[in-house]
Amino acid sequence: MAETLIQFGILGCADVARKVSRAITLAPNATLYAVGSRSLEKATTFAAANGFPPSAKIYGSYEAVLDDPNVDAVYMPLPTSLHLKWAVLAAEKEKHVLLEKPAALNVAELDQILEACESNGVQFMDGSMWLHHPRTAKMKEFLSDPQRFGQLKSVQSCFTFLADSDFLENDIRVKPDLDALGVLGDVGWYCIGAILFAADYELPKSVIALPGTVFNKAGVLTSCGASLLWEDGKVATFNCSFDANLTMNVTVIGTKGTLQVHDFVIPFKEDSVAFSAGIESWFNELVTGWRTMPSEHVVTTNLPQDALMVREFSVLVADIKRNGSKPEQKWPTISRKTQLVLDAVKASLERGL
Amino acid sequence: MAETLIQFGILGCADVARKVSRAITLAPNATLYAVGSRSLEKATTFAAANGFPPSAKIYGSYEAVLDDPNVDAVYMPLPTSLHLKWAVLAAEKEKHVLLEKPAALNVAELDQILEACESNGVQFMDGSMWLHHPRTAKMKEFLSDPQRFGQLKSVQSCFTFLADSDFLENDIRVKPDLDALGVLGDVGWYCIGAILFAADYELPKSVIALPGTVFNKAGVLTSCGASLLWEDGKVATFNCSFDANLTMNVTVIGTKGTLQVHDFVIPFKEDSVAFSAGIESWFNELVTGWRTMPSEHVVTTNLPQDALMVREFSVLVADIKRNGSKPEQKWPTISRKTQLVLDAVKASLERGL
Repeated sequence: MAETLIQFGILGCADVARKVSRAITLAPNATLYAVGSRSLEKATTFAAANGFPPSAKIYGSYEAVLDDPNVDAVYMPLPTSLHLKWAVLAAEKEKHVLLEKPAALNVAELDQILEACESNGVQFMDGSMWLHHPRTAKMKEFLSDPQRFGQLKSVQSCFTFLADSDFLENDIRVKPDLDALGVLGDVGWYCIGAILFAADYELPKSVIALPGTVFNKAGVLTSCGASLLWEDGKVATFNCSFDANLTMNVTVIGTKGTLQVHDFVIPFKEDSVAFSAGIESWFNELVTGWRTMPSEHVVTTNLPQDALMVREFSVLVADIKRNGSKPEQKWPTISRKTQLVLDAVKASLERGL
Repeated sequence: MAETLIQFGILGCADVARKVSRAITLAPNATLYAVGSRSLEKATTFAAANGFPPSAKIYGSYEAVLDDPNVDAVYMPLPTSLHLKWAVLAAEKEKHVLLEKPAALNVAELDQILEACESNGVQFMDGSMWLHHPRTAKMKEFLSDPQRFGQLKSVQSCFTFLADSDFLENDIRVKPDLDALGVLGDVGWYCIGAILFAADYELPKSVIALPGTVFNKAGVLTSCGASLLWEDGKVATFNCSFDANLTMNVTVIGTKGTLQVHDFVIPFKEDSVAFSAGIESWFNELVTGWRTMPSEHVVTTNLPQDALMVREFSVLVADIKRNGSKPEQKWPTISRKTQLVLDAVKASLERGL
């Protein structure tokens, strides 16, 4: 039986939609079917520039995409403040929802989205592409191995990039009415996601914002960090900012092993990436060097991680469509836990002010 | 003119003294001259096992080393609680002092040591060997370069190792009457030192201990961390523990550059080590990979970092001895700032309890 081809509609023409359009083209079980923008002209230009087939539907509104009965699923690269309205509406129109991160402004809004998806039997997934890279699965294998990694003790993550003046003036991520979570919602989302990934999605018992928070004039976060503590004593810290050179680290330390990655969200190269694993690392006898050094583990992939995300999402959608299956709970659960911790960081920041 | 050969006396036979004895042997301007232990037998065994020349003096007390007029300098690998007494006495006997870290139990004690060195015109240096590696100088060049690194924004450091049950029962670093600073004095000293190194020894305006502190039954720290904040908004975090796989990271992020090292205290290999430098790192056009990736910078050295430390110390001692120069203030200043921050972490921990 031929694989069901999931027909995607894209809501909005944000930069990231270009990348996901390519990913939909690359995924063997997905196809670009429609794009909608508030401007028909923008949608037309976008479709022409991003590999949409001639048969693709070009709409001058988001509603029109949702009203098209041939659209199976929507990808939403909209500003966070619009997620609640459009994701709920999409679910009500029985469209499966691939939602760009951060999933929502807060967990209350996310819960409304997830309830709409649940009650309409549609799949929800957020756009955390790195979770779909085969490297991530290999990292999970290592972290889950009591012989090589042992018990998790600490995680450190950071994600910074140097925003230029245009970004700092005009990007939606510095606008309180668009992406009000600023840097925390943008790259902090990934740091929190990596920490939860390492902790096998066990939620921390406490979350405290770190000193050094920076807001822009409009009151949007541009630099922040937090410290997390779990019931069993394991700890994590992260920091994220728009004001420093692009850096993207996760370090995960267990009793026996250490995992390090410097490109966890966007791999240096699409087809071949690495992580470093130290196992029972120790010094030589005179402590003048290391007897057991960390080793590099290279992971190759034919499909980029964004296409793997689309493929995975589309497999789940096809299973619902064809077999009447229930939506997979793994993905909304991950999104919700990430959002919960993000909310806790924000609450701690606000208490501190 | 032949280089003045500085004659070292070693006080105590701790494990680390084996490594520093070798370093003294390797340094071209230093020689092993005497060793003292409370047990003459231990001192004899130590001298025989660690390359002391047949002419070396073997003493059954620390005092005897200090009373030997041919001893120019002493290396002190004693428990921290003994530093005040023996370092002050050494200075009073006009011996130059190479003191194992942590320098003292607190800055008040360190100040007494430094005052004794100052008033007796002897050189002080603590045993932070990594500061003497040529890699460290190369790292400083990078961090000081406004074109490549820009302005410092954040530092993250961690240093953990998995102590075995023997260590956790018997090592001086878990004994309140010996190394009362525990993990903070042992490996936390290095994390703080790396952060200050990156900040060009500007002191932070605030230091706050992170959640997740662990003490052993005797009340000695075995796991902790802290968050530092500077006047100009730059931030740093570190964490250190005796309960996780050996990991030794520094990540330094500036507006333009990123420095990463995974073996900053004890290099993986003695003769050839690396650091990673990212400069104006950015993504390719579609954000599917990095256009500018971090690059590895390899630094080789003929002499190991510990021998370079001994050589540098001995150069300064020779200059004082031969030319009546003043002791170099750089090294005691670094030690004192490190101790100040360490004290601030401890004070924050104690306030939190």
